[in-house]
Amino acid sequence: MNRDFWAEAIGSFFLFCTVIGSGIMAERLAGGNVAVALLGNTIATGAMLFVLIGIFGPMSGAHFNPAVTLVFRLRGELTSATTLRLIAGQLAGGIPGVWAAHLMFARPILELSSKARTGTGQWAGEFIATFGLVFVILGTSRHRPQAVPASVALYIVAAYWFTSSTSFANPAITLARALSDSFAGIAPADVPAFVLAQLCGALAAMVAGRFIFSPAEPSA
Amino acid sequence: MNRDFWAEAIGSFFLFCTVIGSGIMAERLAGGNVAVALLGNTIATGAMLFVLIGIFGPMSGAHFNPAVTLVFRLRGELTSATTLRLIAGQLAGGIPGVWAAHLMFARPILELSSKARTGTGQWAGEFIATFGLVFVILGTSRHRPQAVPASVALYIVAAYWFTSSTSFANPAITLARALSDSFAGIAPADVPAFVLAQLCGALAAMVAGRFIFSPAEPSA
Amino acid sequence: MNRDFWAEAIGSFFLFCTVIGSGIMAERLAGGNVAVALLGNTIATGAMLFVLIGIFGPMSGAHFNPAVTLVFRLRGELTSATTLRLIAGQLAGGIPGVWAAHLMFARPILELSSKARTGTGQWAGEFIATFGLVFVILGTSRHRPQAVPASVALYIVAAYWFTSSTSFANPAITLARALSDSFAGIAPADVPAFVLAQLCGALAAMVAGRFIFSPAEPSA
Amino acid sequence: MNRDFWAEAIGSFFLFCTVIGSGIMAERLAGGNVAVALLGNTIATGAMLFVLIGIFGPMSGAHFNPAVTLVFRLRGELTSATTLRLIAGQLAGGIPGVWAAHLMFARPILELSSKARTGTGQWAGEFIATFGLVFVILGTSRHRPQAVPASVALYIVAAYWFTSSTSFANPAITLARALSDSFAGIAPADVPAFVLAQLCGALAAMVAGRFIFSPAEPSA
Repeated sequence: MNRDFWAEAIGSFFLFCTVIGSGIMAERLAGGNVAVALLGNTIATGAMLFVLIGIFGPMSGAHFNPAVTLVFRLRGELTSATTLRLIAGQLAGGIPGVWAAHLMFARPILELSSKARTGTGQWAGEFIATFGLVFVILGTSRHRPQAVPASVALYIVAAYWFTSSTSFANPAITLARALSDSFAGIAPADVPAFVLAQLCGALAAMVAGRFIFSPAEPSA
Repeated sequence: MNRDFWAEAIGSFFLFCTVIGSGIMAERLAGGNVAVALLGNTIATGAMLFVLIGIFGPMSGAHFNPAVTLVFRLRGELTSATTLRLIAGQLAGGIPGVWAAHLMFARPILELSSKARTGTGQWAGEFIATFGLVFVILGTSRHRPQAVPASVALYIVAAYWFTSSTSFANPAITLARALSDSFAGIAPADVPAFVLAQLCGALAAMVAGRFIFSPAEPSA
Repeated sequence: MNRDFWAEAIGSFFLFCTVIGSGIMAERLAGGNVAVALLGNTIATGAMLFVLIGIFGPMSGAHFNPAVTLVFRLRGELTSATTLRLIAGQLAGGIPGVWAAHLMFARPILELSSKARTGTGQWAGEFIATFGLVFVILGTSRHRPQAVPASVALYIVAAYWFTSSTSFANPAITLARALSDSFAGIAPADVPAFVLAQLCGALAAMVAGRFIFSPAEPSA
Repeated sequence: MNRDFWAEAIGSFFLFCTVIGSGIMAERLAGGNVAVALLGNTIATGAMLFVLIGIFGPMSGAHFNPAVTLVFRLRGELTSATTLRLIAGQLAGGIPGVWAAHLMFARPILELSSKARTGTGQWAGEFIATFGLVFVILGTSRHRPQAVPASVALYIVAAYWFTSSTSFANPAITLARALSDSFAGIAPADVPAFVLAQLCGALAAMVAGRFIFSPAEPSA
């Protein structure tokens, strides 16, 4: 396998393990105050994103997210073979990340989530969250490339709070969260609508980004 | 429309959506502990400001704030036409941002706030908050321009806590918050005094900044 | 007055106003959970320090702290006249910052704190906190000068939590806090011992820094 | 003693003092909400790491961690004499850091922890935490060296939350924590298994890093 596969796999392992693991930790300790639990989950996720994008950005783009990889394919910046390899890495690394969290917290390794996440509001949340994520990646890459790790991390920090769905914004992590019956989980039946909303948001951001950040623009 | 209009509109959409959305999320989850709710609201707002200023700064200045735009007009750095276009973008993008938050959280789209925010203390808060914001923009632009996204974001983080009004510091966001009957709202009748205090603070900071950061000063 | 006076005065105004104001806000909202109150107080103080040091560092050094100013005088980097002017600015700006916080939060402007802060443990806390602050300023200025705003801010963030006294580490702010009967206050009778511990810590750090960061050292 | 000894000793003093001190502070104030206590402990530790790595990185590498020092020895980047000197510094500075925290918080200086931390889940946590720490150091040093202070600090922030053991990830700090019967403590009998898991994780990361970050890779 090429090294970009391993970059996506190891990065997704740590990212997904952080999302699930910090969710379990936060829920265990928060004594029912869900806002405090979400604070812990938010800080851990944002911190890990900054770290991983800094390491793996130069190797694979540090997507950890099939919606982002697809956008770069559609923009012609990736071949189909690379696209498939990156997405394979995201799933092959990310799902064991969930299981590693279960191992650490002494839960059954294999679970399915029973947490319902559905409704127009949450789908709008996923559309807006993923639109914003892709838009932020495109805009920051163009206007402030050295800030991509910080900006993507902080965008997700904000999105955990401003969207009703706490911003999954990532089809691979949505699938992976279905495999954990914990704070960050999502019932398998609710996955397809989330993924559909995410892909629509990503495509809309690609179109908007082409208009807003076109090469003709005088850049600073 | 010029691209700076769209920069202000999309930026204000995400900023105002974050202020309102994270306020709703925080209030729902915090179980009555308002300090925890304000922490969530603060972290989301600061994170989003850093992201948006990094993207839109080179396109429109990333004001998202008519008081800031007016100061740059009075300093002669913007034409009247640009000033009007930026302010139009702030309102045309920001108010739908409030509505998007309502959509995501399954609230009525159109609301009016019933949250009273009035009194000398809060007006002093808005004066000081907006003075500080404009002063920070002028001073950081002059002495550490690459830190503007981080400094403006962190100033607002501090100001949510050190001012009694939680630092609206922005006439457009004050108007937009009047359209949400949630954590971050403000009753319409209380808007004019807030806006007046904000404009006075912004003008005072412009005068102070001209003295303190004058070109004659030996800069590092 | 020279411009470095105004830099210290305006910076100290906002810093001290943030320390006191965010303490009042945090205590009001936290419903008795003092850890949550300290989190709000910490985040606001750290954020404001980053902002202010970025702006005023090139103008006056951005000390906002007589112990730091004295250390630079003893190292021969400041004249006696400048030393006095900076300290005058710290008090002339910082104390009105406390009063502004009282005005915003509708408290009596003039107060004296009744909060006892005394004992060997707290004095050790102030010694260690100020030792660390001066040591961090000297070491970061030498090895990573562009990180001074972030490092000083984050050192204080840590010190609010790892010292038993919540790290005043500043004779001017200790005096100013005696003028507020709120979360961040200190009874006037307890001020002299705090200031003495701070000055001892600052001097010890100056000596340690001379040894550890001496010019002979091969720097990276 | 060489200056790298003092760098490791003073850095470990402040780091270990922060871990223990902020744990005591957090537990005292949090009123039983352990998630809030962990937030305070996390923010203080991460902030201090950023500060210390910025200062001491150019002097000794700023390891403060025998597992990291051993990895650099095995990679041939340190002599055996330097390795021993750095580890001696970590213990000679770090353990008094614990005692300083006890002094500040008016606890008995000499304690032994009674806090059981054991079981497969926690050992898996220490393995993964230390694997990640060493991997992050190697990857960030290679692809984004100026971000090492921020990335290591934020990795630990995340790891406090996503591992079941709250990520000690450091044999010296594990030993030191056994000397404090407080929030961050660990019973002496549980230390060997933690240290073994940490060393296994560090070695695994060294091997993985050699493969993933090999010089042949085209670096950005």
